[in-house]
Amino acid sequence: MQPAQAKSVLPVVLLGCGGVGRHLLRHIVSCRPLHANQGVAIRVVGVADSSSLLVADDVRASGLDDAFLSDLCAAKSAGSPLSSLLARGHCQVFNKPEAMGKVIDAATMLGRTTGLVLVDCSATNDTVALLTDAVNHGCCVVLANKKPLTCAYEDYQKLTSNFRQIRFESTVGAGLPVIASVTRIIASGDPISRIVGSLSGTLGYVMSELEDGKRFSEVVKTAKSLGYTEPDPRDDLSGTDVARKALILARLLGQQISMEDINVESLYPSELGPEVMSTTEFLESGLPQLDERIEERVKAASLRGNVLRYVGVIGNTGCQVGLQEVPKDSALGRLRGSDNVVEIYSRCYESSPLVIQGAGAGNDTTAAGVLADIVDLQDLFQKRA
Amino acid sequence: MQPAQAKSVLPVVLLGCGGVGRHLLRHIVSCRPLHANQGVAIRVVGVADSSSLLVADDVRASGLDDAFLSDLCAAKSAGSPLSSLLARGHCQVFNKPEAMGKVIDAATMLGRTTGLVLVDCSATNDTVALLTDAVNHGCCVVLANKKPLTCAYEDYQKLTSNFRQIRFESTVGAGLPVIASVTRIIASGDPISRIVGSLSGTLGYVMSELEDGKRFSEVVKTAKSLGYTEPDPRDDLSGTDVARKALILARLLGQQISMEDINVESLYPSELGPEVMSTTEFLESGLPQLDERIEERVKAASLRGNVLRYVGVIGNTGCQVGLQEVPKDSALGRLRGSDNVVEIYSRCYESSPLVIQGAGAGNDTTAAGVLADIVDLQDLFQKRA
Repeated sequence: MQPAQAKSVLPVVLLGCGGVGRHLLRHIVSCRPLHANQGVAIRVVGVADSSSLLVADDVRASGLDDAFLSDLCAAKSAGSPLSSLLARGHCQVFNKPEAMGKVIDAATMLGRTTGLVLVDCSATNDTVALLTDAVNHGCCVVLANKKPLTCAYEDYQKLTSNFRQIRFESTVGAGLPVIASVTRIIASGDPISRIVGSLSGTLGYVMSELEDGKRFSEVVKTAKSLGYTEPDPRDDLSGTDVARKALILARLLGQQISMEDINVESLYPSELGPEVMSTTEFLESGLPQLDERIEERVKAASLRGNVLRYVGVIGNTGCQVGLQEVPKDSALGRLRGSDNVVEIYSRCYESSPLVIQGAGAGNDTTAAGVLADIVDLQDLFQKRA
Repeated sequence: MQPAQAKSVLPVVLLGCGGVGRHLLRHIVSCRPLHANQGVAIRVVGVADSSSLLVADDVRASGLDDAFLSDLCAAKSAGSPLSSLLARGHCQVFNKPEAMGKVIDAATMLGRTTGLVLVDCSATNDTVALLTDAVNHGCCVVLANKKPLTCAYEDYQKLTSNFRQIRFESTVGAGLPVIASVTRIIASGDPISRIVGSLSGTLGYVMSELEDGKRFSEVVKTAKSLGYTEPDPRDDLSGTDVARKALILARLLGQQISMEDINVESLYPSELGPEVMSTTEFLESGLPQLDERIEERVKAASLRGNVLRYVGVIGNTGCQVGLQEVPKDSALGRLRGSDNVVEIYSRCYESSPLVIQGAGAGNDTTAAGVLADIVDLQDLFQKRA
């Protein structure tokens, strides 16, 4: 049978081992038997956090073993640095700024021989140049980090110049098959006219909770305590995260736009911004100031049989992100909890859109999307097997 | 830039040039500039209908040109045989039974050199052996035809032994990304516990129209006149088509089952079956006999706040296909028209399923799904470029 012959070995360097990165490592380990059945082997040859890089001794020959990866996850959960794993042996640790150079060394060495997948589960702007360099050396890139895709358009273009080598499903709707579906529709020559989505689990939760008459400030605090928000909830309330997702979708549709071209409605005024007050001050005294205005808008919408949703709209003429009244019984209006929903309109899905809905946040789901992306690269690694 | 270097040339032989096949050929032609941008070129080297095969003179060097393909579509639309195109030159036509042997010749010649994609847009049981043979010669297979995937389990296993070489998105929900999504979820190690779907555009339309108090027989006749049903609507009403889709999904989940293991509820009794009466007789005198019983069930459901839907349920313990009462305000209950909806339950999508909804029928949409499948095989063709 062919699966054994077709075995694809995918060496991986993981950038970022916070929640998503650690879940990914655990998924990789637990999926070994499944992937072996599919003829796929994922070999983790390096892991980087914000301060250092840990690499296997001989990246060409072998990766970090599963027991090592489990210890690494445990160490990172406990807040220990990667260098604490040096005692385990068979690895080296490089600190910044040397670390990034070592990733490029690995990319140069493996990119055109065994191949290499750089997986970016970090949340920084700093990886774009590194990733672009790696792609130019023949490496593949998988992203959960939205920032390399929302940088200056020129940089985006360079990073994505070989489109099959870069995957980023988890940047929009976590594991939901949004990017994969849009990519398929584009490839089939079916022109997409519009995408409308509730793309933030946090804001989806907040907006749906408001319908029950709860106060905005209370709902945001509850969302924070449930772990739905960023440490500073203003990172969600500003709409920047939704704007990033909208930009990723717009660029996927071929629009040559950047963050500054997107009309974004923030849910707090600049007087309550991070430059003016701390997170604690915002939660204590800033947030309650917003209750009245939001309550009025919710009530006004309700009188018209509508509900408020925070949506991204990507059309042929541009991209908007902000509050919108939608009919209570529409796909968007029926949303509850932290589910995302995306409606795609095209020639094939004209009067009635293609709708994708489900959990659009969470480390587990996001990591699952990243892993599916890695596995989907396997065909590019067959030739080197 | 890399796209030019990475060019993938995909030689294609199309089996079946009815509605879907002709739409596919038109899509292939109209997408040439788009695919060129993506570094992909699709070369149609042969087209078969139920009686013969037309192949380009030298399948190794070139395919049928776009003007030829347009003429071919026009000829088939007009009911002319493929042999009517011989006068155009640069091609040969083989009639049955020789034709299938010539497809194998092409598969043997191209499978391990340039590669070959066999695209099955026919509706017959007859292609399984041919497709399996082609896969064994290193060819890829893309299916809109459900039958090769719903044959005996052993044959299914042989056909799909090298899973990356076979794609079949359009067999379930036409172009809706159902198979792609399920495949991604499986690859990410997220165990799927249940899939529930309204998988027939025809029966979805029929069941939703009944809510307005219309008679079953009238609705079925309207559906037929709108082109929603098979020529004999009993092919839809029997549930066999939904059962095939459910089986494809169940097998994708790893269930080693066959058609006879699926509990299928037919919407007409065997006394009104094709062995007893003709299609015309069924429409005139058989169909109205079913009105009363269906009306009673619709009313009973309505009294409970429910609506009737014809669904496929794929669980860990088996597979059922038939009428089910669902809450009026659930994703299934809200369905209108010929949209399909699929709910996927897994660890990541446990309390709230991943929902995919949209048009699940139509030649245009089905052909678009087939084309996306072909393009998605491009990585397997890079090595031979």
